[in-house]
Amino acid sequence: MYYTPPIERLIAELARLPGIGPKSAQRLAFHIIKVPLQEAEDLAQAIVEARRKVQFCRRCFNLSEMELCEYCSDSRRDSSLVCVVEEAKDIVAIERTGEFRGLYHVLGGAISPIDGVGPEQLRVNELVSRIKEDKVEEVILATNPSVEGEATALYIANLIRSMGVKATRLASGLPVGGDLEYADEVTLGRALQGRREI
Amino acid sequence: MYYTPPIERLIAELARLPGIGPKSAQRLAFHIIKVPLQEAEDLAQAIVEARRKVQFCRRCFNLSEMELCEYCSDSRRDSSLVCVVEEAKDIVAIERTGEFRGLYHVLGGAISPIDGVGPEQLRVNELVSRIKEDKVEEVILATNPSVEGEATALYIANLIRSMGVKATRLASGLPVGGDLEYADEVTLGRALQGRREI
Repeated sequence: MYYTPPIERLIAELARLPGIGPKSAQRLAFHIIKVPLQEAEDLAQAIVEARRKVQFCRRCFNLSEMELCEYCSDSRRDSSLVCVVEEAKDIVAIERTGEFRGLYHVLGGAISPIDGVGPEQLRVNELVSRIKEDKVEEVILATNPSVEGEATALYIANLIRSMGVKATRLASGLPVGGDLEYADEVTLGRALQGRREI
Repeated sequence: MYYTPPIERLIAELARLPGIGPKSAQRLAFHIIKVPLQEAEDLAQAIVEARRKVQFCRRCFNLSEMELCEYCSDSRRDSSLVCVVEEAKDIVAIERTGEFRGLYHVLGGAISPIDGVGPEQLRVNELVSRIKEDKVEEVILATNPSVEGEATALYIANLIRSMGVKATRLASGLPVGGDLEYADEVTLGRALQGRREI
């Protein structure tokens, strides 16, 4: 025990957070004891409230304050079209486009053998049962355009096609407003492969 | 508002912590909503308890649960000998040696013009009044052996000497168990300057 017990305890609790080592935990703890009491209480309350109120949507595993998230409980959305994403935060990005009126499915990551993540660690089985139950007609695989994301999309596409359901992937290509000169060769290659008649 | 309000609020609160940017705050928030409720509550309680219970010792500015810290309230310690450190955590390092029986004074940093820290931002005036009041005979300047620490030690040494009080500095030299071959030239130079007859 180096510091007075309340500090030692705070350092230990902070060090349990991902990406926070003992040194960062100490720095944060020393900061917290210096902030106004109200600020410390606000932080503590936000932690407990978020943990108590937020749950996973039982259908799509988006974050939600209710059993079904705002998209799954919206009857105007097309439940035959499901967009599969790695994380709940990806939903935010897709919603911002205003282009999508279907539902989502959050996998909770991507297949990555190095990190010990296989299909069993993701919500793939839940997706399969959902496709059967909800009469899904098309699954858009919107995993990240990374090695892991591509592998995950391929794996799920094979699974889905064997069920007679259409599997699509987001288009790869040049970012809108981007500069051809600065595009990396893989992106430019994909843009060529995916060229469309105008 | 991208996420459900309790998460947005948690992300905002976490992002107020030093060294935690919006991306880290999001990552931490997503972690917190997945941990067992007890773990979230433990963290929240540790934050509020540390902030409520821990204060600065009114004499030496060490962290303490009481008005006077454990060293300042220990009558067996020599109050005529004061060791000046930059941060409360430095006290821990000195106590571990078991070599020091005097009291401490925590400056709260070091003089660093680049960061806008001058003597006024540190607890230098408090040290000066304390030297007068407590009949301090020797002040050991145990600031870090860095540019800022050295500058701070020099500044305070000049101030103290003009009050007729002895100012000393921790010895610089080779680390015990270290290897001469791998010592940097500044440390080796200091070790030569500070050589002692055996």
